[in-house]
Amino acid sequence: MRLIGANLSLVEPGVVEITLPYRADLTQQNGYVHAGIVTAIADTASGYAAFTLMPAGSAVLSVEFKVNLLRPAAGEAFRARAEVIKPGKTLTVVRADVLALNGNKQPLVATMQGTMICLPTGSEARP
Amino acid sequence: MRLIGANLSLVEPGVVEITLPYRADLTQQNGYVHAGIVTAIADTASGYAAFTLMPAGSAVLSVEFKVNLLRPAAGEAFRARAEVIKPGKTLTVVRADVLALNGNKQPLVATMQGTMICLPTGSEARP
Amino acid sequence: MRLIGANLSLVEPGVVEITLPYRADLTQQNGYVHAGIVTAIADTASGYAAFTLMPAGSAVLSVEFKVNLLRPAAGEAFRARAEVIKPGKTLTVVRADVLALNGNKQPLVATMQGTMICLPTGSEARP
Amino acid sequence: MRLIGANLSLVEPGVVEITLPYRADLTQQNGYVHAGIVTAIADTASGYAAFTLMPAGSAVLSVEFKVNLLRPAAGEAFRARAEVIKPGKTLTVVRADVLALNGNKQPLVATMQGTMICLPTGSEARP
Repeated sequence: MRLIGANLSLVEPGVVEITLPYRADLTQQNGYVHAGIVTAIADTASGYAAFTLMPAGSAVLSVEFKVNLLRPAAGEAFRARAEVIKPGKTLTVVRADVLALNGNKQPLVATMQGTMICLPTGSEARP
Repeated sequence: MRLIGANLSLVEPGVVEITLPYRADLTQQNGYVHAGIVTAIADTASGYAAFTLMPAGSAVLSVEFKVNLLRPAAGEAFRARAEVIKPGKTLTVVRADVLALNGNKQPLVATMQGTMICLPTGSEARP
Repeated sequence: MRLIGANLSLVEPGVVEITLPYRADLTQQNGYVHAGIVTAIADTASGYAAFTLMPAGSAVLSVEFKVNLLRPAAGEAFRARAEVIKPGKTLTVVRADVLALNGNKQPLVATMQGTMICLPTGSEARP
Repeated sequence: MRLIGANLSLVEPGVVEITLPYRADLTQQNGYVHAGIVTAIADTASGYAAFTLMPAGSAVLSVEFKVNLLRPAAGEAFRARAEVIKPGKTLTVVRADVLALNGNKQPLVATMQGTMICLPTGSEARP
Protein backbone atom coordinates (compact mmCIF):
# COMPACT_ATOMS: atom_id res chain seq x y z
CA MET A 1 0.00 0.00 0.00
CA ARG A 2 2.95 2.32 0.66
CA LEU A 3 4.30 1.63 -2.83
CA ILE A 4 1.10 2.83 -4.46
CA GLY A 5 0.31 5.63 -2.00
CA ALA A 6 -2.91 4.23 -0.53
CA ASN A 7 -4.15 4.98 2.97
CA LEU A 8 -6.75 3.74 5.44
CA SER A 9 -9.54 6.31 5.47
CA LEU A 10 -12.07 4.54 7.70
CA VAL A 11 -11.87 1.69 10.21
CA GLU A 12 -14.95 0.44 12.06
CA PRO A 13 -15.90 -3.02 13.26
CA GLY A 14 -16.49 -5.00 10.07
CA VAL A 15 -16.05 -2.00 7.74
CA VAL A 16 -12.85 -0.54 6.30
CA GLU A 17 -12.17 2.03 3.60
CA ILE A 18 -8.93 2.56 1.71
CA THR A 19 -8.33 5.64 -0.43
CA LEU A 20 -5.87 5.83 -3.30
CA PRO A 21 -5.03 9.13 -4.99
CA TYR A 22 -4.56 8.97 -8.78
CA ARG A 23 -0.99 8.49 -9.95
CA ALA A 24 0.06 8.28 -13.59
CA ASP A 25 2.44 5.39 -12.94
CA LEU A 26 -0.44 3.18 -11.77
CA THR A 27 -2.19 3.32 -15.12
CA GLN A 28 -2.10 0.94 -18.05
CA GLN A 29 -1.86 1.67 -21.80
CA ASN A 30 -5.22 3.50 -21.95
CA GLY A 31 -4.71 5.87 -19.00
CA TYR A 32 -6.94 3.99 -16.57
CA VAL A 33 -5.67 2.62 -13.27
CA HIS A 34 -4.66 -1.04 -13.68
CA ALA A 35 -7.12 -3.73 -12.60
CA GLY A 36 -4.39 -5.17 -10.37
CA ILE A 37 -4.23 -1.93 -8.40
CA VAL A 38 -8.01 -1.71 -8.11
CA THR A 39 -7.98 -5.30 -6.90
CA ALA A 40 -5.13 -4.64 -4.46
CA ILE A 41 -7.00 -1.89 -2.62
CA ALA A 42 -10.24 -3.91 -2.58
CA ASP A 43 -8.43 -6.99 -1.27
CA THR A 44 -6.52 -5.02 1.35
CA ALA A 45 -9.68 -3.30 2.57
CA SER A 46 -11.40 -6.71 2.68
CA GLY A 47 -8.59 -8.23 4.73
CA TYR A 48 -8.63 -5.36 7.22
CA ALA A 49 -12.43 -5.42 7.47
CA ALA A 50 -12.30 -9.12 8.40
CA PHE A 51 -9.38 -8.45 10.74
CA THR A 52 -11.38 -5.90 12.78
CA LEU A 53 -13.64 -8.77 13.92
CA MET A 54 -10.88 -11.29 14.74
CA PRO A 55 -9.43 -12.01 18.20
CA ALA A 56 -6.33 -10.06 19.23
CA GLY A 57 -3.15 -11.73 18.03
CA SER A 58 -4.73 -13.26 14.92
CA ALA A 59 -3.37 -12.82 11.43
CA VAL A 60 -5.53 -12.61 8.33
CA LEU A 61 -4.94 -14.03 4.85
CA SER A 62 -6.99 -13.87 1.65
CA VAL A 63 -8.25 -17.29 0.62
CA GLU A 64 -9.86 -16.17 -2.63
CA PHE A 65 -11.68 -13.27 -4.22
CA LYS A 66 -13.67 -12.51 -7.30
CA VAL A 67 -13.75 -9.12 -8.94
CA ASN A 68 -16.08 -7.68 -11.56
CA LEU A 69 -14.60 -4.68 -13.31
CA LEU A 70 -17.55 -2.44 -14.12
CA ARG A 71 -16.22 0.81 -15.55
CA PRO A 72 -12.84 2.27 -16.56
CA ALA A 73 -10.93 3.24 -13.41
CA ALA A 74 -10.68 6.94 -14.24
CA GLY A 75 -10.73 9.49 -11.42
CA GLU A 76 -8.86 11.88 -9.15
CA ALA A 77 -8.85 9.20 -6.46
CA PHE A 78 -10.36 5.79 -5.72
CA ARG A 79 -12.01 4.45 -2.61
CA ALA A 80 -12.41 0.78 -1.71
CA ARG A 81 -15.07 0.15 0.92
CA ALA A 82 -15.16 -3.36 2.35
CA GLU A 83 -17.89 -4.78 4.54
CA VAL A 84 -18.05 -8.14 6.30
CA ILE A 85 -21.17 -9.99 5.24
CA LYS A 86 -20.53 -13.19 7.24
CA PRO A 87 -17.97 -13.31 10.06
CA GLY A 88 -16.74 -16.68 11.23
CA LYS A 89 -14.22 -18.24 13.57
CA THR A 90 -12.14 -19.52 10.66
CA LEU A 91 -13.58 -17.96 7.49
CA THR A 92 -15.02 -14.48 6.97
CA VAL A 93 -16.81 -13.45 3.79
CA VAL A 94 -16.41 -9.85 2.70
CA ARG A 95 -17.78 -7.66 -0.06
CA ALA A 96 -15.90 -4.61 -1.34
CA ASP A 97 -16.92 -1.84 -3.74
CA VAL A 98 -14.39 0.45 -5.43
CA LEU A 99 -15.61 3.93 -6.36
CA ALA A 100 -13.85 6.47 -8.55
CA LEU A 101 -13.94 9.89 -6.88
CA ASN A 102 -14.62 12.71 -9.37
CA GLY A 103 -16.18 15.60 -7.50
CA ASN A 104 -19.90 14.85 -7.18
CA LYS A 105 -19.82 11.77 -9.33
CA GLN A 106 -18.62 8.58 -7.67
CA PRO A 107 -19.18 5.75 -10.14
CA LEU A 108 -18.71 2.16 -9.02
CA VAL A 109 -15.70 0.84 -10.94
CA ALA A 110 -15.35 -2.62 -9.42
CA THR A 111 -16.95 -4.95 -6.93
CA MET A 112 -15.33 -7.84 -5.07
CA GLN A 113 -16.63 -10.85 -3.15
CA GLY A 114 -13.99 -12.70 -1.19
CA THR A 115 -13.09 -15.06 1.65
CA MET A 116 -10.58 -14.26 4.39
CA ILE A 117 -9.11 -16.75 6.84
CA CYS A 118 -8.13 -16.13 10.45
CA LEU A 119 -4.80 -17.58 11.53
CA PRO A 120 -4.72 -17.85 15.33
CA THR A 121 -1.77 -16.45 17.27
CA GLY A 122 1.36 -18.45 16.78
CA SER A 123 0.15 -20.37 13.75
CA GLU A 124 2.31 -19.96 10.71
CA ALA A 125 0.96 -22.22 8.03
CA ARG A 126 -1.87 -21.55 5.63
CA PRO A 127 -4.44 -24.21 6.54
CA MET B 1 3.96 -3.77 -15.20
CA ARG B 2 6.85 -1.32 -15.52
CA LEU B 3 6.21 -0.08 -11.98
CA ILE B 4 6.63 -3.54 -10.52
CA GLY B 5 9.40 -4.75 -12.87
CA ALA B 6 7.49 -7.52 -14.64
CA ASN B 7 8.22 -8.66 -18.18
CA LEU B 8 6.64 -10.81 -20.91
CA SER B 9 8.62 -14.05 -20.98
CA LEU B 10 6.55 -16.04 -23.49
CA VAL B 11 3.97 -15.13 -26.13
CA GLU B 12 2.26 -17.79 -28.26
CA PRO B 13 -1.23 -17.95 -29.72
CA GLY B 14 -3.49 -18.32 -26.68
CA VAL B 15 -0.64 -18.61 -24.17
CA VAL B 16 1.32 -15.86 -22.42
CA GLU B 17 3.78 -15.88 -19.53
CA ILE B 18 4.82 -12.93 -17.40
CA THR B 19 7.79 -13.10 -15.06
CA LEU B 20 8.27 -10.90 -12.01
CA PRO B 21 11.56 -10.83 -10.07
CA TYR B 22 11.20 -10.56 -6.29
CA ARG B 23 11.37 -7.02 -4.89
CA ALA B 24 11.14 -6.17 -1.21
CA ASP B 25 8.82 -3.22 -1.85
CA LEU B 26 6.16 -5.53 -3.35
CA THR B 27 5.72 -7.46 -0.12
CA GLN B 28 3.21 -7.07 2.67
CA GLN B 29 3.72 -7.19 6.44
CA ASN B 30 4.82 -10.85 6.46
CA GLY B 31 7.46 -10.66 3.70
CA TYR B 32 5.32 -12.34 1.02
CA VAL B 33 4.46 -10.62 -2.24
CA HIS B 34 1.07 -8.90 -1.97
CA ALA B 35 -1.97 -10.71 -3.38
CA GLY B 36 -2.67 -7.62 -5.48
CA ILE B 37 0.67 -8.01 -7.24
CA VAL B 38 0.16 -11.74 -7.79
CA THR B 39 -3.26 -10.90 -9.21
CA ALA B 40 -1.89 -8.12 -11.39
CA ILE B 41 0.56 -10.39 -13.20
CA ALA B 42 -2.05 -13.15 -13.58
CA ASP B 43 -4.62 -10.68 -14.94
CA THR B 44 -2.13 -9.07 -17.31
CA ALA B 45 -1.01 -12.45 -18.64
CA SER B 46 -4.66 -13.42 -19.07
CA GLY B 47 -5.45 -10.26 -21.00
CA TYR B 48 -2.48 -10.72 -23.33
CA ALA B 49 -3.28 -14.42 -23.84
CA ALA B 50 -6.80 -13.48 -24.96
CA PHE B 51 -5.41 -10.63 -27.06
CA THR B 52 -3.17 -13.00 -29.08
CA LEU B 53 -6.35 -14.55 -30.54
CA MET B 54 -8.20 -11.30 -31.29
CA PRO B 55 -8.39 -9.54 -34.68
CA ALA B 56 -5.79 -6.85 -35.39
CA GLY B 57 -6.87 -3.47 -34.08
CA SER B 58 -8.90 -4.87 -31.17
CA ALA B 59 -8.45 -3.81 -27.58
CA VAL B 60 -8.89 -6.17 -24.63
CA LEU B 61 -10.39 -5.50 -21.19
CA SER B 62 -10.86 -7.71 -18.14
CA VAL B 63 -14.54 -8.31 -17.39
CA GLU B 64 -13.98 -10.31 -14.21
CA PHE B 65 -11.62 -12.74 -12.61
CA LYS B 66 -11.49 -15.03 -9.62
CA VAL B 67 -8.30 -15.89 -7.81
CA ASN B 68 -7.54 -18.60 -5.27
CA LEU B 69 -4.42 -17.86 -3.25
CA LEU B 70 -2.89 -21.27 -2.53
CA ARG B 71 0.45 -20.71 -0.83
CA PRO B 72 2.47 -17.76 0.50
CA ALA B 73 4.03 -15.90 -2.45
CA ALA B 74 7.64 -16.47 -1.38
CA GLY B 75 10.32 -16.85 -4.05
CA GLU B 76 13.17 -15.35 -6.04
CA ALA B 77 10.75 -14.68 -8.87
CA PHE B 78 7.17 -15.41 -9.93
CA ARG B 79 5.76 -16.57 -13.21
CA ALA B 80 2.16 -16.18 -14.35
CA ARG B 81 1.19 -18.51 -17.19
CA ALA B 82 -2.16 -17.80 -18.82
CA GLU B 83 -3.95 -20.05 -21.28
CA VAL B 84 -7.14 -19.42 -23.23
CA ILE B 85 -9.64 -22.15 -22.49
CA LYS B 86 -12.49 -20.78 -24.63
CA PRO B 87 -11.91 -18.10 -27.25
CA GLY B 88 -14.89 -16.14 -28.54
CA LYS B 89 -15.77 -13.22 -30.79
CA THR B 90 -16.79 -11.11 -27.81
CA LEU B 91 -15.77 -13.00 -24.66
CA THR B 92 -12.69 -15.13 -24.05
CA VAL B 93 -12.26 -17.28 -20.94
CA VAL B 94 -8.73 -17.67 -19.63
CA ARG B 95 -7.05 -19.62 -16.84
CA ALA B 96 -3.78 -18.48 -15.27
CA ASP B 97 -1.46 -20.16 -12.80
CA VAL B 98 1.17 -18.25 -10.81
CA LEU B 99 4.27 -20.20 -9.76
CA ALA B 100 6.96 -19.13 -7.31
CA LEU B 101 10.41 -19.81 -8.78
CA ASN B 102 12.83 -21.18 -6.19
CA GLY B 103 15.49 -23.21 -7.98
CA ASN B 104 14.05 -26.66 -8.60
CA LYS B 105 10.87 -26.08 -6.63
CA GLN B 106 8.14 -24.17 -8.38
CA PRO B 107 5.08 -24.28 -6.15
CA LEU B 108 1.73 -23.04 -7.44
CA VAL B 109 0.91 -19.94 -5.39
CA ALA B 110 -2.29 -18.81 -7.07
CA THR B 111 -4.72 -19.75 -9.80
CA MET B 112 -7.10 -17.48 -11.70
CA GLN B 113 -10.15 -18.03 -13.87
CA GLY B 114 -11.31 -14.97 -15.75
CA THR B 115 -13.23 -13.45 -18.64
CA MET B 116 -11.78 -10.99 -21.14
CA ILE B 117 -13.74 -8.90 -23.63
CA CYS B 118 -12.70 -7.88 -27.13
CA LEU B 119 -13.39 -4.27 -28.04
CA PRO B 120 -13.36 -3.93 -31.83
CA THR B 121 -11.25 -1.21 -33.48
CA GLY B 122 -12.62 2.23 -32.88
CA SER B 123 -14.96 1.27 -30.05
CA GLU B 124 -14.31 3.11 -26.82
CA ALA B 125 -16.96 2.13 -24.37
CA ARG B 126 -17.06 -0.90 -22.12
CA PRO B 127 -20.16 -2.76 -23.34
CA MET C 1 -37.62 -24.19 -11.92
CA ARG C 2 -40.76 -26.26 -12.40
CA LEU C 3 -38.83 -29.42 -11.48
CA ILE C 4 -37.84 -28.00 -8.11
CA GLY C 5 -41.08 -26.11 -7.41
CA ALA C 6 -39.69 -22.55 -7.44
CA ASN C 7 -41.72 -19.50 -8.41
CA LEU C 8 -41.20 -15.84 -9.25
CA SER C 9 -42.30 -13.86 -6.22
CA LEU C 10 -41.24 -10.34 -7.28
CA VAL C 11 -40.40 -8.71 -10.61
CA GLU C 12 -39.37 -5.06 -10.83
CA PRO C 13 -36.97 -3.29 -13.18
CA GLY C 14 -33.55 -4.62 -12.19
CA VAL C 15 -34.82 -6.66 -9.23
CA VAL C 16 -36.27 -10.17 -9.17
CA GLU C 17 -37.08 -12.59 -6.36
CA ILE C 18 -37.58 -16.33 -6.64
CA THR C 19 -39.07 -18.38 -3.80
CA LEU C 20 -38.51 -22.09 -3.28
CA PRO C 21 -40.50 -24.06 -0.70
CA TYR C 22 -38.52 -26.75 1.17
CA ARG C 23 -38.72 -30.22 -0.32
CA ALA C 24 -37.01 -33.27 1.13
CA ASP C 25 -35.86 -34.51 -2.28
CA LEU C 26 -33.79 -31.33 -2.82
CA THR C 27 -31.56 -32.03 0.16
CA GLN C 28 -28.19 -33.71 0.38
CA GLN C 29 -26.88 -36.27 2.89
CA ASN C 30 -27.13 -33.88 5.88
CA GLY C 31 -30.70 -32.66 5.33
CA TYR C 32 -29.75 -29.25 3.92
CA VAL C 33 -30.80 -28.10 0.48
CA HIS C 34 -28.06 -28.86 -2.06
CA ALA C 35 -25.71 -26.04 -3.06
CA GLY C 36 -26.65 -26.69 -6.68
CA ILE C 37 -30.28 -25.88 -5.92
CA VAL C 38 -29.37 -22.74 -3.96
CA THR C 39 -27.20 -21.72 -6.91
CA ALA C 40 -29.93 -22.51 -9.43
CA ILE C 41 -32.44 -20.14 -7.83
CA ALA C 42 -29.81 -17.41 -7.40
CA ASP C 43 -28.69 -17.76 -11.02
CA THR C 44 -32.24 -17.80 -12.34
CA ALA C 45 -33.18 -14.72 -10.32
CA SER C 46 -30.01 -13.02 -11.60
CA GLY C 47 -30.81 -13.82 -15.21
CA TYR C 48 -34.36 -12.51 -14.89
CA ALA C 49 -33.19 -9.36 -13.07
CA ALA C 50 -30.82 -8.60 -15.95
CA PHE C 51 -33.55 -9.48 -18.45
CA THR C 52 -35.96 -6.87 -17.02
CA LEU C 53 -33.58 -4.17 -18.27
CA MET C 54 -32.94 -5.60 -21.75
CA PRO C 55 -34.68 -4.56 -24.97
CA ALA C 56 -37.77 -6.51 -26.03
CA GLY C 57 -36.89 -9.61 -28.02
CA SER C 58 -33.53 -10.15 -26.30
CA ALA C 59 -32.48 -13.40 -24.71
CA VAL C 60 -30.29 -13.63 -21.62
CA LEU C 61 -27.55 -16.13 -20.77
CA SER C 62 -25.32 -16.52 -17.71
CA VAL C 63 -21.67 -15.87 -18.56
CA GLU C 64 -20.31 -16.70 -15.11
CA PHE C 65 -21.14 -16.50 -11.45
CA LYS C 66 -19.44 -16.90 -8.12
CA VAL C 67 -21.22 -18.13 -5.03
CA ASN C 68 -20.20 -18.05 -1.38
CA LEU C 69 -22.12 -20.54 0.72
CA LEU C 70 -22.48 -18.91 4.11
CA ARG C 71 -24.70 -21.09 6.25
CA PRO C 72 -26.44 -24.48 5.96
CA ALA C 73 -29.49 -24.13 3.72
CA ALA C 74 -32.05 -25.13 6.35
CA GLY C 75 -35.50 -23.58 6.29
CA GLU C 76 -39.19 -23.84 5.43
CA ALA C 77 -38.50 -21.97 2.22
CA PHE C 78 -35.74 -20.05 0.47
CA ARG C 79 -35.77 -16.73 -1.31
CA ALA C 80 -33.24 -15.56 -3.88
CA ARG C 81 -33.26 -11.79 -4.41
CA ALA C 82 -31.21 -10.56 -7.37
CA GLU C 83 -30.36 -6.94 -8.09
CA VAL C 84 -28.60 -5.46 -11.11
CA ILE C 85 -25.56 -3.50 -9.99
CA LYS C 86 -24.31 -2.51 -13.45
CA PRO C 87 -26.54 -2.77 -16.52
CA GLY C 88 -24.92 -2.72 -19.94
CA LYS C 89 -25.77 -3.11 -23.61
CA THR C 90 -23.94 -6.44 -23.77
CA LEU C 91 -23.01 -7.41 -20.19
CA THR C 92 -24.98 -6.90 -16.99
CA VAL C 93 -23.52 -7.53 -13.55
CA VAL C 94 -25.90 -8.82 -10.90
CA ARG C 95 -25.71 -9.63 -7.21
CA ALA C 96 -28.05 -12.14 -5.57
CA ASP C 97 -28.62 -13.05 -1.94
CA VAL C 98 -30.36 -16.26 -0.87
CA LEU C 99 -32.20 -16.18 2.45
CA ALA C 100 -33.63 -19.12 4.38
CA LEU C 101 -37.17 -18.30 5.56
CA ASN C 102 -37.82 -19.54 9.11
CA GLY C 103 -40.55 -17.40 10.64
CA ASN C 104 -38.90 -14.23 11.93
CA LYS C 105 -35.37 -15.34 11.26
CA GLN C 106 -34.15 -15.01 7.69
CA PRO C 107 -30.47 -15.83 7.69
CA LEU C 108 -28.39 -15.23 4.56
CA VAL C 109 -27.34 -18.65 3.31
CA ALA C 110 -25.54 -17.71 0.10
CA THR C 111 -24.50 -14.73 -1.96
CA MET C 112 -23.75 -14.62 -5.69
CA GLN C 113 -21.98 -12.16 -7.96
CA GLY C 114 -22.41 -12.86 -11.65
CA THR C 115 -22.36 -11.63 -15.23
CA MET C 116 -25.25 -11.97 -17.67
CA ILE C 117 -25.08 -11.41 -21.42
CA CYS C 118 -27.79 -9.99 -23.66
CA LEU C 119 -28.33 -11.82 -26.94
CA PRO C 120 -30.15 -9.51 -29.36
CA THR C 121 -33.26 -10.75 -31.18
CA GLY C 122 -32.50 -13.38 -33.76
CA SER C 123 -28.99 -14.15 -32.54
CA GLU C 124 -28.44 -17.73 -31.55
CA ALA C 125 -24.82 -18.21 -30.67
CA ARG C 126 -23.09 -17.50 -27.40
CA PRO C 127 -20.60 -14.73 -28.27
CA MET D 1 -27.97 -36.34 -7.37
CA ARG D 2 -30.68 -39.00 -7.22
CA LEU D 3 -33.30 -36.42 -8.18
CA ILE D 4 -31.49 -35.55 -11.40
CA GLY D 5 -30.23 -39.07 -12.21
CA ALA D 6 -26.48 -38.44 -11.88
CA ASN D 7 -23.96 -41.11 -10.90
CA LEU D 8 -20.33 -41.37 -9.82
CA SER D 9 -18.40 -42.68 -12.81
CA LEU D 10 -14.83 -42.43 -11.46
CA VAL D 11 -13.31 -42.11 -7.99
CA GLU D 12 -9.55 -41.86 -7.49
CA PRO D 13 -7.50 -40.01 -4.88
CA GLY D 14 -8.06 -36.34 -5.71
CA VAL D 15 -10.10 -37.00 -8.87
CA VAL D 16 -13.82 -37.69 -9.22
CA GLU D 17 -16.13 -37.84 -12.23
CA ILE D 18 -19.91 -37.58 -12.19
CA THR D 19 -22.00 -38.46 -15.24
CA LEU D 20 -25.49 -37.14 -15.92
CA PRO D 21 -27.64 -38.52 -18.74
CA TYR D 22 -29.75 -35.94 -20.60
CA ARG D 23 -33.30 -35.50 -19.32
CA ALA D 24 -35.82 -33.12 -20.83
CA ASP D 25 -37.04 -31.95 -17.42
CA LEU D 26 -33.56 -30.60 -16.56
CA THR D 27 -33.60 -28.11 -19.42
CA GLN D 28 -34.55 -24.46 -19.48
CA GLN D 29 -36.62 -22.52 -22.03
CA ASN D 30 -34.14 -23.06 -24.89
CA GLY D 31 -33.70 -26.82 -24.53
CA TYR D 32 -30.27 -26.69 -22.88
CA VAL D 33 -29.61 -28.17 -19.46
CA HIS D 34 -29.96 -25.48 -16.77
CA ALA D 35 -26.79 -23.81 -15.47
CA GLY D 36 -27.86 -24.80 -11.95
CA ILE D 37 -27.75 -28.48 -12.92
CA VAL D 38 -24.38 -28.11 -14.63
CA THR D 39 -23.15 -26.37 -11.49
CA ALA D 40 -24.63 -29.03 -9.21
CA ILE D 41 -22.71 -31.87 -10.85
CA ALA D 42 -19.48 -29.83 -10.94
CA ASP D 43 -19.85 -28.87 -7.29
CA THR D 44 -20.69 -32.41 -6.21
CA ALA D 45 -17.71 -33.83 -8.11
CA SER D 46 -15.51 -31.14 -6.52
CA GLY D 47 -16.72 -31.97 -3.03
CA TYR D 48 -16.11 -35.70 -3.53
CA ALA D 49 -12.67 -35.08 -5.08
CA ALA D 50 -11.66 -33.10 -1.98
CA PHE D 51 -13.25 -35.72 0.26
CA THR D 52 -11.07 -38.53 -1.18
CA LEU D 53 -8.04 -36.80 0.39
CA MET D 54 -9.57 -36.09 3.81
CA PRO D 55 -9.13 -38.18 6.98
CA ALA D 56 -11.72 -40.87 7.67
CA GLY D 57 -14.70 -39.48 9.54
CA SER D 58 -14.46 -36.00 8.06
CA ALA D 59 -17.31 -34.23 6.35
CA VAL D 60 -16.89 -31.86 3.41
CA LEU D 61 -18.72 -28.62 2.61
CA SER D 62 -18.44 -26.20 -0.29
CA VAL D 63 -17.14 -22.80 0.83
CA GLU D 64 -17.45 -21.10 -2.54
CA PHE D 65 -17.14 -21.76 -6.25
CA LYS D 66 -16.98 -19.84 -9.46
CA VAL D 67 -18.32 -21.14 -12.74
CA ASN D 68 -17.77 -19.95 -16.28
CA LEU D 69 -20.45 -21.20 -18.66
CA LEU D 70 -18.68 -21.69 -21.98
CA ARG D 71 -21.13 -23.30 -24.39
CA PRO D 72 -24.79 -24.31 -24.41
CA ALA D 73 -25.22 -27.49 -22.36
CA ALA D 74 -26.52 -29.63 -25.23
CA GLY D 75 -25.67 -33.33 -25.33
CA GLU D 76 -26.76 -36.93 -24.74
CA ALA D 77 -25.00 -36.83 -21.40
CA PHE D 78 -22.70 -34.62 -19.33
CA ARG D 79 -19.58 -35.44 -17.39
CA ALA D 80 -18.11 -33.34 -14.59
CA ARG D 81 -14.46 -34.15 -13.86
CA ALA D 82 -13.05 -32.58 -10.69
CA GLU D 83 -9.39 -32.51 -9.71
CA VAL D 84 -7.83 -31.26 -6.49
CA ILE D 85 -5.23 -28.62 -7.29
CA LYS D 86 -4.26 -27.81 -3.69
CA PRO D 87 -5.16 -30.11 -0.79
CA GLY D 88 -5.04 -28.73 2.72
CA LYS D 89 -5.85 -29.69 6.30
CA THR D 90 -8.75 -27.21 6.40
CA LEU D 91 -9.25 -25.92 2.85
CA THR D 92 -8.91 -27.78 -0.44
CA VAL D 93 -9.01 -26.02 -3.81
CA VAL D 94 -10.56 -27.93 -6.68
CA ARG D 95 -11.06 -27.38 -10.39
CA ALA D 96 -13.85 -29.06 -12.34
CA ASP D 97 -14.61 -29.22 -16.04
CA VAL D 98 -18.01 -30.21 -17.42
CA LEU D 99 -18.06 -31.83 -20.86
CA ALA D 100 -21.08 -32.52 -23.05
CA LEU D 101 -20.91 -36.07 -24.42
CA ASN D 102 -22.01 -36.27 -28.07
CA GLY D 103 -20.35 -39.28 -29.65
CA ASN D 104 -16.84 -38.25 -30.66
CA LYS D 105 -17.28 -34.60 -29.80
CA GLN D 106 -16.95 -33.70 -26.15
CA PRO D 107 -17.03 -29.91 -25.92
CA LEU D 108 -16.24 -28.19 -22.64
CA VAL D 109 -19.47 -26.53 -21.51
CA ALA D 110 -18.41 -25.15 -18.13
CA THR D 111 -15.43 -24.85 -15.83
CA MET D 112 -15.43 -24.35 -12.06
CA GLN D 113 -12.84 -23.25 -9.53
CA GLY D 114 -13.86 -23.75 -5.92
CA THR D 115 -12.90 -24.15 -2.28
CA MET D 116 -13.99 -27.05 -0.07
CA ILE D 117 -13.67 -27.21 3.70
CA CYS D 118 -12.98 -30.27 5.82
CA LEU D 119 -15.10 -30.62 8.96
CA PRO D 120 -13.38 -33.00 11.38
CA THR D 121 -15.34 -35.89 12.89
CA GLY D 122 -17.92 -34.74 15.35
CA SER D 123 -17.89 -31.10 14.36
CA GLU D 124 -21.23 -29.75 13.25
CA ALA D 125 -20.86 -26.08 12.64
CA ARG D 126 -19.61 -24.36 9.52
CA PRO D 127 -16.47 -22.53 10.67
